[in-house]
Amino acid sequence: MAGTDRSKEPVLGGPVVVLVEPQLGENIGTSARAMLNGGLTELRLVRPRDGWPNAKATAAAAGADAVIEGARLFDSTAAAIADCRRVYATTARRRDMIKPVLSPARAASEIHAASTADKRCAVLFGPERRGLTNDDVALSDAAIEVDLNPAFRSLNLAQAVLLVSYEWYRASRSVTHFALPIGTTRPATKAELLGFFEHLEGELDRCGFLQVKEKRPTMVRNIRNMFQRANLTEQEVRTLRGIVTGLSVHGPAALAKQESGDLPE
Amino acid sequence: MAGTDRSKEPVLGGPVVVLVEPQLGENIGTSARAMLNGGLTELRLVRPRDGWPNAKATAAAAGADAVIEGARLFDSTAAAIADCRRVYATTARRRDMIKPVLSPARAASEIHAASTADKRCAVLFGPERRGLTNDDVALSDAAIEVDLNPAFRSLNLAQAVLLVSYEWYRASRSVTHFALPIGTTRPATKAELLGFFEHLEGELDRCGFLQVKEKRPTMVRNIRNMFQRANLTEQEVRTLRGIVTGLSVHGPAALAKQESGDLPE
Repeated sequence: MAGTDRSKEPVLGGPVVVLVEPQLGENIGTSARAMLNGGLTELRLVRPRDGWPNAKATAAAAGADAVIEGARLFDSTAAAIADCRRVYATTARRRDMIKPVLSPARAASEIHAASTADKRCAVLFGPERRGLTNDDVALSDAAIEVDLNPAFRSLNLAQAVLLVSYEWYRASRSVTHFALPIGTTRPATKAELLGFFEHLEGELDRCGFLQVKEKRPTMVRNIRNMFQRANLTEQEVRTLRGIVTGLSVHGPAALAKQESGDLPE
Repeated sequence: MAGTDRSKEPVLGGPVVVLVEPQLGENIGTSARAMLNGGLTELRLVRPRDGWPNAKATAAAAGADAVIEGARLFDSTAAAIADCRRVYATTARRRDMIKPVLSPARAASEIHAASTADKRCAVLFGPERRGLTNDDVALSDAAIEVDLNPAFRSLNLAQAVLLVSYEWYRASRSVTHFALPIGTTRPATKAELLGFFEHLEGELDRCGFLQVKEKRPTMVRNIRNMFQRANLTEQEVRTLRGIVTGLSVHGPAALAKQESGDLPE
């Protein structure tokens, strides 16, 4: 799903992402791309297996070039996190350690609350397959564990980075969970909607659709509720009135044909 | 991050995942893997470019074989969703349509509330790069849009599937956002903690660390607060008492040396 709007600024103040002994350059590139999706820009690498810089990393970054170009290289995990105040270790399995285990959402919310210019946070990711060593986990304040299907938990490096950066982005701003974009038109006023209802019901009375007197109030309420739920715009109300007008000229004749078993032409 | 526990059952009742005109077999495989991470198992394919079955899909599924083997093939999007009651279209850009736009979290929570045996929901994913056609979007009840960095939004197919299945998994059960696993030991009682505090403070009084009378209450409170924050276990309290006992025999001598500028041996 590509949908980049380059006119907007990235989010600032996110955690440093530390990849410890990453093996494949491709995975460093796709991780950089995953980071930038969530507005994370600061990448640190501890002893990448194939050296640095790595052309495959740049190729796989697919546009997240600035993250790759700004990546810093370190000899040890301890050196990579030396300037950070709080460090999280991503882990897929429980270690024999007494250390808080947080969801990515909870960690992101903590990091958001804690991050300031002089209080950097970092998230550690271990090498493909093996994961972080216990010594690296012991360097961190808390572990991050993604809650996934216990019968099949299989994330690659970039996907783990994506879930952390996605949650960081969610925590760092107020996410819109629901929107109904209506373009240049505007929501219909209740007067416009009522005008449509009265128009429609008048035509339905005329054609005999509402002729059973004791059923009429319920039928009218059901029809009104149905159109209420559609959150109609002013334009759509006009369209519907056009439809009712268009149909109603031939309405009674078509209805009579249907009742006698013929389909309207 | 691999951490599969095969003894546990997958979650049931998730939405159908419909991949419309997927191009690469690899992406079908990685999408199946992404689905199963979130407990989603029902995959439908609309006109996959390279035919079906596809050996590359199976290879890339990395263990999500049952999802691939159970995948069903359809000629059209309409046919693929015919038995579904509610359909969501994943989109990266706003279309010129008046249709609700939901976050993956909001969509997952709706699906969780709506899904029953006779009320299936489906989530549509378009082909790599191009995304869903407007006609496919118009077949759906709502769009799902992932809120990501507006300056760089670049998810591949499997990552988009992962975020939807991750949110479905989150919505379908009560996620643990914080845990402090302590193995076979137990949290210390307050009596044990207080016993340790008194032991420590007794030794600190004895060695002269707390000798400035007006500072003593604040220092004691600070020390107690520091150890309170650590959520100590019974075992750790015993370890700390051992440390205090071990240190205190040589305590006064070491402290005297430090004050005179010598380091303790």
